[in-house]
Amino acid sequence: MRQSQLFTKTRKEAPADEVSKNAQLLLRAGYIYKNMAGAYSFLPLGLRVIEKINAIIREEMNAIGGQEVHMPSLQEPTLWKKSDRWDDDKVDVWFKSNLRAGGEVGFAWTHEEVITELMRQYISSYKDLPLYPYQIQTKFRNETRAKSGIMRTREFWMKDLYSFSATEEEHNKFYEAAALAYKRIFDRIGIGDKTYRTFASGGAFTKFSHEFQTLCEAGEDIVYVNEVKGIAVNEEVLAEADLSELGITKEELEKRKSIEVGNIFSLGTKFSEALGLMYKDENGEEKPVIMGSYGIGPARAMGTVVELLSDEKGIVWPEAVAPFKVHLVGLNGDDDEVRDYTDGIYLAMKERGVEVLYDDRDARAGEKFADSDLLGIPYRVVVSRKTKEEGKFEVVTRATGEVRHLTEEELYADFDNDENT
Amino acid sequence: MRQSQLFTKTRKEAPADEVSKNAQLLLRAGYIYKNMAGAYSFLPLGLRVIEKINAIIREEMNAIGGQEVHMPSLQEPTLWKKSDRWDDDKVDVWFKSNLRAGGEVGFAWTHEEVITELMRQYISSYKDLPLYPYQIQTKFRNETRAKSGIMRTREFWMKDLYSFSATEEEHNKFYEAAALAYKRIFDRIGIGDKTYRTFASGGAFTKFSHEFQTLCEAGEDIVYVNEVKGIAVNEEVLAEADLSELGITKEELEKRKSIEVGNIFSLGTKFSEALGLMYKDENGEEKPVIMGSYGIGPARAMGTVVELLSDEKGIVWPEAVAPFKVHLVGLNGDDDEVRDYTDGIYLAMKERGVEVLYDDRDARAGEKFADSDLLGIPYRVVVSRKTKEEGKFEVVTRATGEVRHLTEEELYADFDNDENT
Repeated sequence: MRQSQLFTKTRKEAPADEVSKNAQLLLRAGYIYKNMAGAYSFLPLGLRVIEKINAIIREEMNAIGGQEVHMPSLQEPTLWKKSDRWDDDKVDVWFKSNLRAGGEVGFAWTHEEVITELMRQYISSYKDLPLYPYQIQTKFRNETRAKSGIMRTREFWMKDLYSFSATEEEHNKFYEAAALAYKRIFDRIGIGDKTYRTFASGGAFTKFSHEFQTLCEAGEDIVYVNEVKGIAVNEEVLAEADLSELGITKEELEKRKSIEVGNIFSLGTKFSEALGLMYKDENGEEKPVIMGSYGIGPARAMGTVVELLSDEKGIVWPEAVAPFKVHLVGLNGDDDEVRDYTDGIYLAMKERGVEVLYDDRDARAGEKFADSDLLGIPYRVVVSRKTKEEGKFEVVTRATGEVRHLTEEELYADFDNDENT
Repeated sequence: MRQSQLFTKTRKEAPADEVSKNAQLLLRAGYIYKNMAGAYSFLPLGLRVIEKINAIIREEMNAIGGQEVHMPSLQEPTLWKKSDRWDDDKVDVWFKSNLRAGGEVGFAWTHEEVITELMRQYISSYKDLPLYPYQIQTKFRNETRAKSGIMRTREFWMKDLYSFSATEEEHNKFYEAAALAYKRIFDRIGIGDKTYRTFASGGAFTKFSHEFQTLCEAGEDIVYVNEVKGIAVNEEVLAEADLSELGITKEELEKRKSIEVGNIFSLGTKFSEALGLMYKDENGEEKPVIMGSYGIGPARAMGTVVELLSDEKGIVWPEAVAPFKVHLVGLNGDDDEVRDYTDGIYLAMKERGVEVLYDDRDARAGEKFADSDLLGIPYRVVVSRKTKEEGKFEVVTRATGEVRHLTEEELYADFDNDENT
């Protein structure tokens, strides 16, 4: 894409009311726009990042048997009264409104009730199980305080997968598969090394549930972690559980701030019993379906990447989620011959399928480099009069600052051979 | 995909309360699920259709310079009071709620105000124009009566593009480009021949706006059309406008029911003036930006396809929006050798990149054929003991009923060469 046509622009300063690093950098670079406290727009570059994250999530969910659906936000009270999650006394994050045709409606903050009711139509026998529907869909939550930039908002995408199993064994097997898929997702988007599968309280059905917590000073959560043993627990578990089960003592755990980037939860038969989702087992006996839920917020993941992978100059996107792989920065564009030459390189890259943002703007080199650092695209390729004369391209790797000088052939070979795209 | 793993099932009867043909067929075939009046879930096959429609819309919008964004639903009153569209007396489709932190919020039913305010950050000079941001995003409208299946709901995806131009000439040029893009979209999804660019009242800024109306008995709208001349007008224009301008008389127009599948509208400077979106022209003079809006509802388009392209047996998807191109129906699956053979054909098709749904279920041939007709996938390929013995595949084209008998080689060649995928 030609940067001269991109409608967003960078800005030197973030708005004064924006305190979180992720929002500051994303706003300055033009990835997002703040509409109100807790509600952001995703602009062309920002939406590209979200779509990359979503594509990784979809791949991993499909690989473990996920089937994508899309459920509505609008909710009538009926279902939620059955599970006792309609009253504001019980759930304090509802946005509620009224139908002009009469009756209350709510805007879904989660979808356990909805998917359970839906699956009643399709599950009647053990032969129908297991099933793993999921969606990437917008949730609304009436948070009292919306802070932490795009990491805690009142409206956000969520990937929510729900598992439906006949037996505990079947459930546990999938639960582990989902945990491994989550690990792959966080590895692929570049935050795997800081992300711990953290033991959390399990509720009535299982001893533990699991949060995926990413160590980060900007986090709102606290975990207790042993980085050598690779074990983390949350505060509840630290206070209540017998840590010896986990092969660790309190003394070995260090208190750290963290971001909850995902969670997986065994729901047992809570919702299937409340809403009557039963199946007949091999002996014809009616039993409630065993359920689990598995959540990831793509925008929170994006915010976490920015918090962890940025420096004083701007964002440092990992290749897998970067809006473009290459930032082609054209200099000496006032010289028609240089400009034509640079246009040619841009078109050659596009033809080879390289995702490239081409800075063809009429601006000073210093401004272009500063913008390029702020945007954080993994490879910057500079084309100038000198390049044209010498046939060597300056290639700067954003993450390391490494500078290479490559011929046109070497340049294409480099981007073709890269396995990370 | 293996049909045995798909969680949806077909059903013989639609729910009694569902009167529209699109919802009846889509519910029976398992494409959608009704959550409440005016809110549906899109199940795996249904979401595939929506994604195909969205991909076509994106291609056409990008081709005319569109830049995709995503704006939030949650809205504070401020902006909407500036354009006088917050009061329920002025706009009767708002869903409104309250923030726990204090203050009213609404759920966006359109985004003119939002995008205008957003663009103030990026537009200051004629050099920044023109710009064409768009999104495919969920709208909420508090409809008194939700009817017509997925064609009029309280929550629906909408592709809304907004144009920002410096001059009327620039605006008009894009308006025509958008109209042509809309024509291509409706052609590509298979409803072009019944869809008319219909003259509608233009408001203060232009004499006419345009609706894209698809002739259909299930429509809620009325148009007056001359199919030979290819001209259509809506009721307002029939009553008020001087038809001679359009080269037509009242007598030449026939009254028909229709579905509004899209609209394009010149907004003039209504929103830019209300919200202060100004630009400096070449003489440094401040002027309000000229705007337009361009809408299409992907689910309404999907419903329209079903209304027009279906028969007594079920849906007849055009290839471009079908959930799969080929429905591979395996018979004699109780014979291991036949099953292995059919599995091999399925894998060979998948390797060749053919989008194929494989009916590997343990069911009678009659049931499989009835389901196949209901699902409406363009090509049915039957594999049975006889196929294995004779090396000939029965290929049935859903739209025409044409039956061909092809060798394995001819089969692959047929699907490879097809330009419509």
